[in-house]
Amino acid sequence: MKPTVIALTTDFGNSGPYVSAMKGVILGINPAVQLVDVSHEIGPQNIREAALCLGQVVPFFPHGTIHVVVVDPGVGTERRLLCVRMHEQVFLAPDNGVLSWAARGAVAIERFHLMESRFWRPEVSATFHGRDILAPVAAHLSLGVAPHELGPAVPEWVELPWPTSIRSTSRIEGEVLALDRFGNLITNIGESELSLAGKLIVRICCSGQTINQVVRTYADVSTGQLLALVGSSGLVEIAVRNGSAAERLRASEGSPVVVTW
Amino acid sequence: MKPTVIALTTDFGNSGPYVSAMKGVILGINPAVQLVDVSHEIGPQNIREAALCLGQVVPFFPHGTIHVVVVDPGVGTERRLLCVRMHEQVFLAPDNGVLSWAARGAVAIERFHLMESRFWRPEVSATFHGRDILAPVAAHLSLGVAPHELGPAVPEWVELPWPTSIRSTSRIEGEVLALDRFGNLITNIGESELSLAGKLIVRICCSGQTINQVVRTYADVSTGQLLALVGSSGLVEIAVRNGSAAERLRASEGSPVVVTW
Amino acid sequence: MKPTVIALTTDFGNSGPYVSAMKGVILGINPAVQLVDVSHEIGPQNIREAALCLGQVVPFFPHGTIHVVVVDPGVGTERRLLCVRMHEQVFLAPDNGVLSWAARGAVAIERFHLMESRFWRPEVSATFHGRDILAPVAAHLSLGVAPHELGPAVPEWVELPWPTSIRSTSRIEGEVLALDRFGNLITNIGESELSLAGKLIVRICCSGQTINQVVRTYADVSTGQLLALVGSSGLVEIAVRNGSAAERLRASEGSPVVVTW
Repeated sequence: MKPTVIALTTDFGNSGPYVSAMKGVILGINPAVQLVDVSHEIGPQNIREAALCLGQVVPFFPHGTIHVVVVDPGVGTERRLLCVRMHEQVFLAPDNGVLSWAARGAVAIERFHLMESRFWRPEVSATFHGRDILAPVAAHLSLGVAPHELGPAVPEWVELPWPTSIRSTSRIEGEVLALDRFGNLITNIGESELSLAGKLIVRICCSGQTINQVVRTYADVSTGQLLALVGSSGLVEIAVRNGSAAERLRASEGSPVVVTW
Repeated sequence: MKPTVIALTTDFGNSGPYVSAMKGVILGINPAVQLVDVSHEIGPQNIREAALCLGQVVPFFPHGTIHVVVVDPGVGTERRLLCVRMHEQVFLAPDNGVLSWAARGAVAIERFHLMESRFWRPEVSATFHGRDILAPVAAHLSLGVAPHELGPAVPEWVELPWPTSIRSTSRIEGEVLALDRFGNLITNIGESELSLAGKLIVRICCSGQTINQVVRTYADVSTGQLLALVGSSGLVEIAVRNGSAAERLRASEGSPVVVTW
Repeated sequence: MKPTVIALTTDFGNSGPYVSAMKGVILGINPAVQLVDVSHEIGPQNIREAALCLGQVVPFFPHGTIHVVVVDPGVGTERRLLCVRMHEQVFLAPDNGVLSWAARGAVAIERFHLMESRFWRPEVSATFHGRDILAPVAAHLSLGVAPHELGPAVPEWVELPWPTSIRSTSRIEGEVLALDRFGNLITNIGESELSLAGKLIVRICCSGQTINQVVRTYADVSTGQLLALVGSSGLVEIAVRNGSAAERLRASEGSPVVVTW
C-alpha cells in the first residue's frame, strides 16, 4: 500500500522539541506515513509568509497529501480549527487565512470545523493544538477517516486577501511579496499579467533602479547584473546573477515594484 | 509490517555532513525505518539542553521508538555508551546524563553497556561514535536485536540532577530552564507545584517584573502583555503575547523565577 | 520491498519552499521512497562546499542510493544535467564539478546526459531544473528506470580539481578545506599523507600557532587546548577541546596549514 504523505508547515523552528512532538503523535497512530517538512522556519506567527509558502508548494504535492499547518497566534481562543479539501489534497489549519493563497484557483473547496474530539489526544493543552488536535487528526485521515467525519461543514472561513497588483493602461503597480535565500525578490506580479503587456519593451522599477528587460534565466545576464524573470512559481522575480537583489536594492517585503511599457 | 521509528537528537547542526552520514549507515542496514529528526541544533556539547529537549518529546513518541542521542563531549574516552530501556522506548546515548530528564517518572529503567562490536561498523573512528557505533546498533535494534544482546547490564549511570525548585510556605524559587523560538521562558516549576499554591492569587516574578496571574493561553491577555501559563510540557512558562519575553525581560537560561501567593 | 533511498543536497536553505516542492514531485511519482536530507544549507552556489560535503557522506550511503544534487549557478544555460553511476550509487547533478570529490577513488564511472524529457515534468521552468527535471528523474530511477535510458553516455565531464597538498622531504603544505559547526578546521591533508611522515614527531602549524602532536581524540588534551587529529572523514583536523579552533586561530577556508617533522 502506498504511504500517505503528511506535509508539515509551522513557525516552530528547526531546533526545538515542538515539531518532533507532533511527528511522534502522528507516528503513534500511523507509523507508515511519509512525513515531509515544508518549512518550520516561517517567521513566528507570520500568517502571510506561511500562506505564500503553501501557495508555492501545494501545486507540486500529490493528490491525497495531508497538510498540517501550524501558524496559530490564536491558539486556545475561540478561533476554529479547519479541515479543508481542495486541489484533491487535504489541509488542517487554524481558521486564520493561512490557506487562502493555496486556495487560489481551486475549483471546489470543502471546509469542516474540527469538533469530533475522539480523533484528538485525550488531553488537549491550551497552547499546542498542533500536537494535541491537528497531528492526531492528520494521522486518522491517513488511516481512512473522511474529512466530513471530523466535524460539521462550514460555509465560510477567514480570508487573507491576495495583494493584487494595480494595472492601468501603461503600468502595473505591485510589490515585493517575499525574499528567498538567494536574495531574489519575489513579487505579486504574475506571468499572465506581464504577458498582457505584450511584446513591448518592459521596464521594471524597484528602489529607484530600472531593469529594461525580462530575461528567461539568471545566466542570461553577466555576473553581478540586475535582472527580472518569471520565476519557478509563475511570479515575476527580481534578481542579481550570482548575487543578492535584496542587498543591491535594499528592498524588502512590501517594497513597491512598478512595471511600465 | 510497521516501520520502526528511529529518532535522532544531536548537536551536529542541520547543515553539515554528520547527520546524513549516520542516516546512511542506518539505511544501509535497514532501509525501511521511519527516521525522525528531533533536533540537530542542540548547542555544541550542551548536555543539559539535549536532556530538556528529550524530556519534552519522549512522552509523545510511540512505544518501540529507538532514540539515538549524540551530544558527546567525551567521545573516544573511556566514557561508556549505553542502551537504555524505559517508557517502553529504547535509547542509545553516551553515559553523560543526557537521558536523565527523559527518565523522570520512568517506572523501570534497564541499562546495557554497548560492548558487542559485531553490531558496530567494522572500523570505528575515535571521534564519531554516533556514526560508527550508535547508528548501526539502532538499525540492528530495529531489525529485532534485543537490548541485552548489545552488552552487559549495568546498574548505575551518570545522572544529571533536575534543577529542583525550592518551595517554602509562601514561595517557590525556580529558574529559567530554556528559551524557545518565540522568546517564551520555560521554567523548572511544574504544574503540580503550582497547583499546591491552590486558588490563591499567584504572582510570578522574573527580572524585576511581576505577573499577577496565571492564564490559560497566550490570547487571554492583550497583544504585547506579559503573561504566565502552564505550557504544553507541563512547566510554567513566561511569555509575551505576540512578542518575546526573553527580550522584554532580558532573561536567559538560569534567570531566577519566584512564585509567591 | 525495500524502499530506495533518495538523498538531497542543495543550496536552497531549510526555510523556503524549494526543497519541499522537489519532494512533492518525487512523492507524486513514487510515494514509497526513503527521503534523506544531506544538507540544504550549502552556501548559495558554492560548488566546492557541496563537493566536499558529498565526498564526506557518500561512503556511508548504501548501494542503490540515488543522490540529487542541486547547486546550479548555470541553471537554464547550456550546461548539461548528468546521471552518474559510481560507488554502486547513482547521482543526478548539473555538470559543474559538484560530484568530483565524491568520485575520488571510484573504480568505474558511467555518465549519461539527461535528454529523455519523457521522464521530466511536462512543463520545465528555466530556473528550477531541480524540481522539473532532477526530482522526477530520481523518482523514475527509484521505480526501475536504468541510467542509460535517461540519455546518451558522455565520456567526459567538468572536473573540480582536489586541492592537493604539496609534499617535500620535510613538510606538507596544505590548507583548510572547511569549518564544521564546532569550529573544527578540516584540512586537505589525508591520513595516508600524514602516515608517510612516519613515527617522527609531527608539528602542525596554522595561523602562526604550532601543534606538537597528533592525538587520537579530542579528550586526549585538556579543555581549551589546541589539538590535531585524523577526523572521521580521514582528513587531518585542527580543533580545540570543547572550543572552536576557527575562533582561536582566526582561520577560515583556504588558510594555510603546514606539517613538518
